[in-house]
Amino acid sequence: MAVKSESVAVVSIGDELAIGQSLDTNSKWLSEKLTERGLTVVEHVTVPDDLERLVATLRRLARTCSKIVVTGGLGPTEDDLTREAVGMLLGERLVEDPESLEAIRAWFAAAKRTMPERNRVQALRPESGVHLSNPNGTAPGLRVLFEGTTILCLPGPPGEMRPMFERVVETEIQPPEGRKIRTMVFQTIGAGESDVAGRLGVLMSRGRNPLVGTTASAGIVSVRVRYEGGGTEDEVARLLDQTSAALRDAVGDLVFAEGGGSLAEVALEKLRRVGGRLATVESCTGGMLGQSLTAIAGSSDVYVGGWVTYSNEMKSRLVGVDRGVIERCGAVSREVACEMASGGLSRSDADHCLAITGVAGPGGGTAEKPVGTVWIGLASREGGVDCRRFQMRGERDSVRQWSVSSALGMLVLRLDGRSGVRLLRQAEA
Amino acid sequence: MAVKSESVAVVSIGDELAIGQSLDTNSKWLSEKLTERGLTVVEHVTVPDDLERLVATLRRLARTCSKIVVTGGLGPTEDDLTREAVGMLLGERLVEDPESLEAIRAWFAAAKRTMPERNRVQALRPESGVHLSNPNGTAPGLRVLFEGTTILCLPGPPGEMRPMFERVVETEIQPPEGRKIRTMVFQTIGAGESDVAGRLGVLMSRGRNPLVGTTASAGIVSVRVRYEGGGTEDEVARLLDQTSAALRDAVGDLVFAEGGGSLAEVALEKLRRVGGRLATVESCTGGMLGQSLTAIAGSSDVYVGGWVTYSNEMKSRLVGVDRGVIERCGAVSREVACEMASGGLSRSDADHCLAITGVAGPGGGTAEKPVGTVWIGLASREGGVDCRRFQMRGERDSVRQWSVSSALGMLVLRLDGRSGVRLLRQAEA
Repeated sequence: MAVKSESVAVVSIGDELAIGQSLDTNSKWLSEKLTERGLTVVEHVTVPDDLERLVATLRRLARTCSKIVVTGGLGPTEDDLTREAVGMLLGERLVEDPESLEAIRAWFAAAKRTMPERNRVQALRPESGVHLSNPNGTAPGLRVLFEGTTILCLPGPPGEMRPMFERVVETEIQPPEGRKIRTMVFQTIGAGESDVAGRLGVLMSRGRNPLVGTTASAGIVSVRVRYEGGGTEDEVARLLDQTSAALRDAVGDLVFAEGGGSLAEVALEKLRRVGGRLATVESCTGGMLGQSLTAIAGSSDVYVGGWVTYSNEMKSRLVGVDRGVIERCGAVSREVACEMASGGLSRSDADHCLAITGVAGPGGGTAEKPVGTVWIGLASREGGVDCRRFQMRGERDSVRQWSVSSALGMLVLRLDGRSGVRLLRQAEA
Repeated sequence: MAVKSESVAVVSIGDELAIGQSLDTNSKWLSEKLTERGLTVVEHVTVPDDLERLVATLRRLARTCSKIVVTGGLGPTEDDLTREAVGMLLGERLVEDPESLEAIRAWFAAAKRTMPERNRVQALRPESGVHLSNPNGTAPGLRVLFEGTTILCLPGPPGEMRPMFERVVETEIQPPEGRKIRTMVFQTIGAGESDVAGRLGVLMSRGRNPLVGTTASAGIVSVRVRYEGGGTEDEVARLLDQTSAALRDAVGDLVFAEGGGSLAEVALEKLRRVGGRLATVESCTGGMLGQSLTAIAGSSDVYVGGWVTYSNEMKSRLVGVDRGVIERCGAVSREVACEMASGGLSRSDADHCLAITGVAGPGGGTAEKPVGTVWIGLASREGGVDCRRFQMRGERDSVRQWSVSSALGMLVLRLDGRSGVRLLRQAEA
């Protein structure tokens, strides 16, 4: 086990998380930020709105972790129990913080509303605790010290939690002295995880430092390199260089990006470098490709937009797919994917157009075109149209994710001049 | 604390989860399914690929939980440690399962590949363990019994994990005898969480059974009702009826849906009921609205598709927004939102068209139109165009999520004949 001074736990609170009604995105976001700061995240825990369990969890984690970051349970309702739990842990009563009460009143005043009396509880804190101001909501954050462990409680809504964390991280979250954590990521395309691992061989030994690990997601295998320990900047850099070089020897031909950006980010950046612009025509993904591109700030300089041609009527009406071709070949076919890509290209001012049409399921499959059959077309002003058939596996969401990922993969490979590379799940034409 | 016989813990494994590189969606999905089966999920835990920590976590959870569902760590690489961890926990050596080895070989054969030698480790299991077959991948699942606790290990990829869970749940996951868990959800729109809680009053007391709780997400406040305990079906039904009636008295005017479906599902269902069809024109959300609608199987009967008019050029070219209007009023304006909605409606065979244009940030804000300014238009064949300005808060993703949610909210209110209801974050026109 890691010693107390070097590890962080992330705790998220809420019945809606525990019972699976809501997805916890806070733990991922916080862990990424904490890791970037050189801290080791050893555990995420989600607990329901249960006072006893919450206190027990904090007590357990405080035994081995130097820091605990908690999100949620700071709202104004009776099932918001973080304030009370921290008070119990410390054995302190809760007091009303006049400054926080004033800030909550001001927050409602700015929204032209009167503070409901219920929100008054949000101004409470354990006697020894310090409130962290929240310009984006009514819940102040809370910092306390318990037996040498710093506990940082942040509000649950990401729009309030993230800015608060960003603001306090410099003062509240210090990396352990002399200890360095450095991570690198190499993203590969065109081979499965076990093939990548096979090529990496002993580089993936568990005892190694830097440690090398792989993760597969929708056709992309990421190879993570992580150094953790002491040493000067030079020494650490040399170790990372050696590992990177060995890694490039082993799987360099599969690498399309060095760094942790999403496939959409990588595609946008490669387009930006060559001054190319992209349009999209989506059927079974229904906007997911556009969504993933526009999730990235600044995408508007290379992504112009496109069409969601979900119905056959819209395929013809919007991007000019021949009605006869749809009837003859079916909406999920090479011909329709090609016409969608070419039609989108000619109706926009883009240089490349990606088109996706497929059977996402669970219904709609036939013997000839089972669920998971997806055609992806890439039309470019220079380079013609590349159409590929894929046989995706799994459920609707998985088929759609793989479709988006494979479409972006085709674009990235074309931009890298490597269109010959076959993608995972790609089927014989 | 709940007694051992009534509680389940969900464990997800992986460095990529612990360091925040990947988002854990398995725990949410599993918790939802387990809760539906009448089990109480008391904790989710995420741990890195660390053998000692994994064994300690399983040992700790087995002390209080009757069942543990683990995902991840069953892959073929050296950082896949679940098999080994379970073996250590049981004090058993790992043996090769000939049937599983054959299944893995067959899986590769079906994909016209030879099994890499590395995948052979996936056929290992502790001596007393039972493998669960995996038609969607190479990793068999694993079931073991440790000191009275059933531990179910499933593969990490959702496309493999979900079908495996669905297949074994009937036999492996029995609800506790005589114990009932029943949940209901009422979704409200137009009021903040503290206002809803204020109206619910003593209904939200922590000791109450059924227990009533609220969750807020992008303008929607869900009120959850949860009964947990013994009693006949009739008794439980009567208790739930009483609580529902009291709840409707308190907040009935805000309720737009009873049941846990997403806002997109509710909107599609309401459209379906009146035989209406929907198109979308998206700027700052870039496809997110279409994506959320098409995430739902069967959406094609009411959602026809639409446009992603990310650039100004595409706004004019695709849905006919007047270039002069964009210049004069700006792309984020009542005029452009109206023209986008009307233009989309007239260019499709839909009955309603939603349009979104806004400043998602972090750049692009001005004093007059700060980040978070969003105009949403709803044009209908009957009922004209409704355009509303919103001032969203938080980061890019939050602004986009709230935009999608508010657009769907406007549609749902119109379909309910309640267009007069003001939405959260809606600003003065």
